[in-house]
Amino acid sequence: MRALVYDRLGEEDDAATGLVVRDIDIPEPGPGEIRLLVSAYGLNQADILLMTGRHYTRSDFPMRIGYEASGVVDAVGAGVTRFAIGDRVTTIPNTEGPYSCANEYALAREEFATPWPEGWSQAEAAGYWMQYLTAYFPMKELFPVAEGDWVVITAASGGSGLGAIQMAKALGARVIATTRTSEKRQFLIDQGADATIATTEEDTTKAIMSITGGEGARLIADGIGGAFVADYIDALADKGIAYIYGALSGANDITFPVLPLVRRRAALYGYSLINETRDPAALARGVAFVTDLIADGVLHKPVIDRTYPLSEAPAAYDRMKSGVQRGKIIVTL
Amino acid sequence: MRALVYDRLGEEDDAATGLVVRDIDIPEPGPGEIRLLVSAYGLNQADILLMTGRHYTRSDFPMRIGYEASGVVDAVGAGVTRFAIGDRVTTIPNTEGPYSCANEYALAREEFATPWPEGWSQAEAAGYWMQYLTAYFPMKELFPVAEGDWVVITAASGGSGLGAIQMAKALGARVIATTRTSEKRQFLIDQGADATIATTEEDTTKAIMSITGGEGARLIADGIGGAFVADYIDALADKGIAYIYGALSGANDITFPVLPLVRRRAALYGYSLINETRDPAALARGVAFVTDLIADGVLHKPVIDRTYPLSEAPAAYDRMKSGVQRGKIIVTL
Repeated sequence: MRALVYDRLGEEDDAATGLVVRDIDIPEPGPGEIRLLVSAYGLNQADILLMTGRHYTRSDFPMRIGYEASGVVDAVGAGVTRFAIGDRVTTIPNTEGPYSCANEYALAREEFATPWPEGWSQAEAAGYWMQYLTAYFPMKELFPVAEGDWVVITAASGGSGLGAIQMAKALGARVIATTRTSEKRQFLIDQGADATIATTEEDTTKAIMSITGGEGARLIADGIGGAFVADYIDALADKGIAYIYGALSGANDITFPVLPLVRRRAALYGYSLINETRDPAALARGVAFVTDLIADGVLHKPVIDRTYPLSEAPAAYDRMKSGVQRGKIIVTL
Repeated sequence: MRALVYDRLGEEDDAATGLVVRDIDIPEPGPGEIRLLVSAYGLNQADILLMTGRHYTRSDFPMRIGYEASGVVDAVGAGVTRFAIGDRVTTIPNTEGPYSCANEYALAREEFATPWPEGWSQAEAAGYWMQYLTAYFPMKELFPVAEGDWVVITAASGGSGLGAIQMAKALGARVIATTRTSEKRQFLIDQGADATIATTEEDTTKAIMSITGGEGARLIADGIGGAFVADYIDALADKGIAYIYGALSGANDITFPVLPLVRRRAALYGYSLINETRDPAALARGVAFVTDLIADGVLHKPVIDRTYPLSEAPAAYDRMKSGVQRGKIIVTL
């Protein structure tokens, strides 16, 4: 089968440089695993961190890639009870094993697979678990968002950002979405944001304090990190929390003044979905919550920015790296 | 009365440069306030942050100083019920008002005063509230320490550090105390530390991981901040917390790699005693807890490093800035 593979790390400014499409053996599902014929897989910023050696999980070369997919079950391992051959499924990110999705056939543990939502396209079904579950754990379980809380979502125009907007709104929060320039303001409002900040055009801290009437943000979901932390750390509410879940800034170190953190009794938290879904009970809670909200029409189909064929995956990553996308970038198999 | 006053900010390398002893009027206690004839006051690192304009609270020039004192009540304001003239008392840090202690007479709100512990010297009674309450809130209320938890205490040889060691041990923790060189290792072991790290002589992260058997620290109480955060951030346990409560590094910004924070689901928290004791109920809980543990012989008299007369207060601050002290530095009135 064709699979996306890389034998060396990519450069910081050309992460996809090492990616090649190679023929490899079709894997056989082990106990508790299903195999799916992959329809499409969703790109994530974590892919770029992996490709450039900056993700906190690592595996050996040759490495494979792809966290979430849509597809049809074509084989099941011993003991599988939830799915049968022919079922249409979507998969949930799981780094702990041979579960890459950027290949014609993919394996998944059955608890990391769910029924394909009715009426969703191949691309839509391949691009919602990362964004909704990534927002679910901090906003619902770790630092529960209450009705009316101000939540800031940085880099809001990508898949993770848009998923976070929907989750925050579903929990009753008021959302401030940040974007680099004014170009995407209306898009973000259309996607549910109550207010927007163009971070290269205005002072982020002043804007947050102004929008919140001086109260500050209860929660900041930041996928940027690096020096950008200093731009918002003084805009947290008393006992506010900023969680870092990405490194779009490209910097490994984060730097910010400590006094605002002390003055506001605030905390900076390091968050990764993968650390939560390792716990089967937590995984089940998150999946049930998101599934119910989708069924109720509260969470919607992901916004798809563009789809690419597997042979053009490097171009898909270049687009993600550019930051011009509006929503999820998908590669079809 | 004589009072320590400064009309301009001190230099970073000579914080006490602006301090002078000046005659000012003796204050009258207002409603709910007592006045004490001050016996001694305790120095704190926060004094240096105030003197150099780096504390998160500020008042106008001329500024006064001194957070905690021992003394005898010589006047009471309207409505005071807890104390009478002649009572020997100790005071609790309170920045919200004219409550500086580096003067012959000091005011205190009665809820920020407590009976002078039996048998404690003037110096000892002037130097225990900051260190015990500062450790109480994070270790008991905010991030409760459980039996056997590994707690790291940085810059452990000063008053705050030694108070934190005692509080952590009182709560059943195992304590790793850091100090710059090996010189104070034995002193810290004598003060209750289970293990020590000389941060200029060994790799702090490796040492913590080795001492904790690879588990990492559940809680890190850091009074240093700045670039030192990077020296320990990768030694937190899963869901561990580092709280910054000082800036001995002299740096306003803290800088550290974000991946360890994400990998360990860890948090960095900004902590200040003053933010907690604003809540009267929280203040009462902390005072009762510390008072009971002192009465039970679990918390001990503070270790007094050296005492100075008021006229030599600048020398006292120079000594604190040097980092050579072992315990609390006290100025007698």
